[in-house]
Amino acid sequence: MAIVECIPNISEGRRQDVLDACAGAISLAGVRLLDVKPDPSHHRTVFTFAGEPDRVRAAVLALYDAAVPAIDLRQHSGEHPRMGAVDVVPFVPIEGVTMTDCVAMAREVGAEIAARHQVPVYLYEEAASQPARRNLEDVRRGEFEGLAQKMRAAEWRPDFGPAEPHPSAGASAVGARMPLIAYNINLATNRLDVAKKIATAVRHSSGGLRFVKAMGIELGDRDIVQVSMNLTNYEKTPVFRVFELVRREAARYGVTVLESEIVGLIPQAALTASAAWYLQLDGFSDGQILENKLRTTAS
Amino acid sequence: MAIVECIPNISEGRRQDVLDACAGAISLAGVRLLDVKPDPSHHRTVFTFAGEPDRVRAAVLALYDAAVPAIDLRQHSGEHPRMGAVDVVPFVPIEGVTMTDCVAMAREVGAEIAARHQVPVYLYEEAASQPARRNLEDVRRGEFEGLAQKMRAAEWRPDFGPAEPHPSAGASAVGARMPLIAYNINLATNRLDVAKKIATAVRHSSGGLRFVKAMGIELGDRDIVQVSMNLTNYEKTPVFRVFELVRREAARYGVTVLESEIVGLIPQAALTASAAWYLQLDGFSDGQILENKLRTTAS
Repeated sequence: MAIVECIPNISEGRRQDVLDACAGAISLAGVRLLDVKPDPSHHRTVFTFAGEPDRVRAAVLALYDAAVPAIDLRQHSGEHPRMGAVDVVPFVPIEGVTMTDCVAMAREVGAEIAARHQVPVYLYEEAASQPARRNLEDVRRGEFEGLAQKMRAAEWRPDFGPAEPHPSAGASAVGARMPLIAYNINLATNRLDVAKKIATAVRHSSGGLRFVKAMGIELGDRDIVQVSMNLTNYEKTPVFRVFELVRREAARYGVTVLESEIVGLIPQAALTASAAWYLQLDGFSDGQILENKLRTTAS
Repeated sequence: MAIVECIPNISEGRRQDVLDACAGAISLAGVRLLDVKPDPSHHRTVFTFAGEPDRVRAAVLALYDAAVPAIDLRQHSGEHPRMGAVDVVPFVPIEGVTMTDCVAMAREVGAEIAARHQVPVYLYEEAASQPARRNLEDVRRGEFEGLAQKMRAAEWRPDFGPAEPHPSAGASAVGARMPLIAYNINLATNRLDVAKKIATAVRHSSGGLRFVKAMGIELGDRDIVQVSMNLTNYEKTPVFRVFELVRREAARYGVTVLESEIVGLIPQAALTASAAWYLQLDGFSDGQILENKLRTTAS
C-alpha cells in the first residue's frame, strides 16, 4: 500500500460554489479528502487529501480542470501572496513511497498540467530543478502582478509550459516535501523577549537547527508566551531534539516549559522516534508495534 | 473494526504433527496467526493470533477440537507448570473492544468449551469470578497431578463444566487481560546486587508499581546486568514511569542506564503515551496521528 498526501492551495476563499466544485472534483478521483480550509481574508483555500499515487495524480488534474476556468487572478486580491489560480501543489510521502517517488510525481503532474492548461509550472523544494527554486517564497516573489516581467529573465523560465503567465491563472509551483509538523512550546513566563530569543536560537534562518522555522509570540489571554514552530523534516530534525533545545535555552533565562502542542496532524513515526529516544530503546523496529504487525500479517 | 488478541498455551512442544494440526485449525477460522513458539523442554507451545471477536472465538473452539483428543496429560512432563491440554486461554483487547468485551468473551467461550469437551474451566485475571482466582499461579497450583484432589474443595469448583478433571485434558484457565509488554533495562554496571535491588524497588510484589513484575539478571556475555520486566497494564503503569523510576533508583547507586529494549511487540498507544509525556504534549489526541486520520476518513 502506497500513500501520498497532497495539499494544494488555490486562490479562492470566498465563493462556496467554486470550493464545492473543487472538493467534488478531488473526491471523485477516489482519494480521501481530509480537510478543506477556506480563508476569506487570504482569499485562499487549502485542500488536504491522500491516497494511492495514481489517484492523487488524477485528483490534482481534476482540481485544475475545476479551478482554472473558475478563478481569474486579474480580479483577485487577498492578504496571502499568490501567483496562480492553483498556487501551490506539494506531494508528501506518507507510506510505502519515497521522496524520490514524490519528486517524480511532481515532474509528471507538472508536465501534464502545463500541457493541458497552458499554465507555466515551477518545480520547488525537493523537486526543484535548481537551488534558487527550492524556496517557495523565492519562486513566488513578485506574485501574479509581477509574473510577466519576472518570466522575461532567463533564470525564471518555467520548468514546464509557456514562457509567459496564463492570462487568468498565472503560474503554479509544484513540488515535493516532507510532512510539516506545526509544533508550539508554551513557556511559564510572559516575557516575549525570552520567546523571541529562543526562536532566534533554534531556527535555521538565524543559525539554529536545519529544519526548524520559529517565532516568539504572546498568548495574551493566558499571560504567557510561545515559541511557535514549523518542523519541515522530522526525520532529520526530530521533535525531541527541538523540544530539548528549547527547554535548555529557556533554562538559561530561568524559564521552564509549561507544555507543548501539536497543531493538526503528526506522522506516527515522529512520535515513535521520540518515545524510542527518551526510553533509550535499543534496536527497536516498527515491526514490533503490535498494530503494524497485525496489518502486515496475512489473514 | 474490532480486534481481539488471543495467546493460548497448549501442553505440547514436541510433536510437530500435533502443532501443525493446531495451527491449521486456528488459521482456518479466519484469524491472523502471528506467532507459534514451541518449547520442547517446557513441552509447551504458545500460539498468538488476532482478529474479529467472532473469528477469535471460532479459532479457540477449533484449537480445542484439535488439541483435546491429541494431548494426554497422563503421559506429559515438562519444565513448565500446567494443568490442562489447552492450559491457558487469555483474550486481550487490541482495537475497538473494551476489557469488558473480553471478559464477556472469556465467559462465553469458557462455557462453550466446558459443554463441548467436558473440560472444567476456571475464569482468571480480569474475568475471574472471585479474587482468589485472579492470579493464574494460584489457579494452576498443584498442576494436573493435584487437580482431582484440589477440585474436591468447594472453593475450587470450576466456573464451568464438571467438578472433576477431564481424564486426559485436565482443566483450562480462560481469562482476559491487558497486552503484556516485555521490557528490559540494561545498566552500565556488572553489579548484580544493584539490578536486584532496583527490581525489588520497582516491582509490585515487593512494594513497587502496581503492574510491574521484575527481576535482576546478569548478561554475562556483555559483562552488564539487566532489570528484566513484564508490564502487565501499560495504561495504568506506563512505560515511561517505569523507565524513570529505574533510572532514578540506578542513580542512587551511581549507575546509569545503558539502554532499554522491548522484547516482542508493544501496542502503539504505549509508545504514543511515552512521547506525549516526555514532550509535555498538551491536549493531544490519537486523531492527530496522520495514519489514524487516513484510516478513519472515508474515501
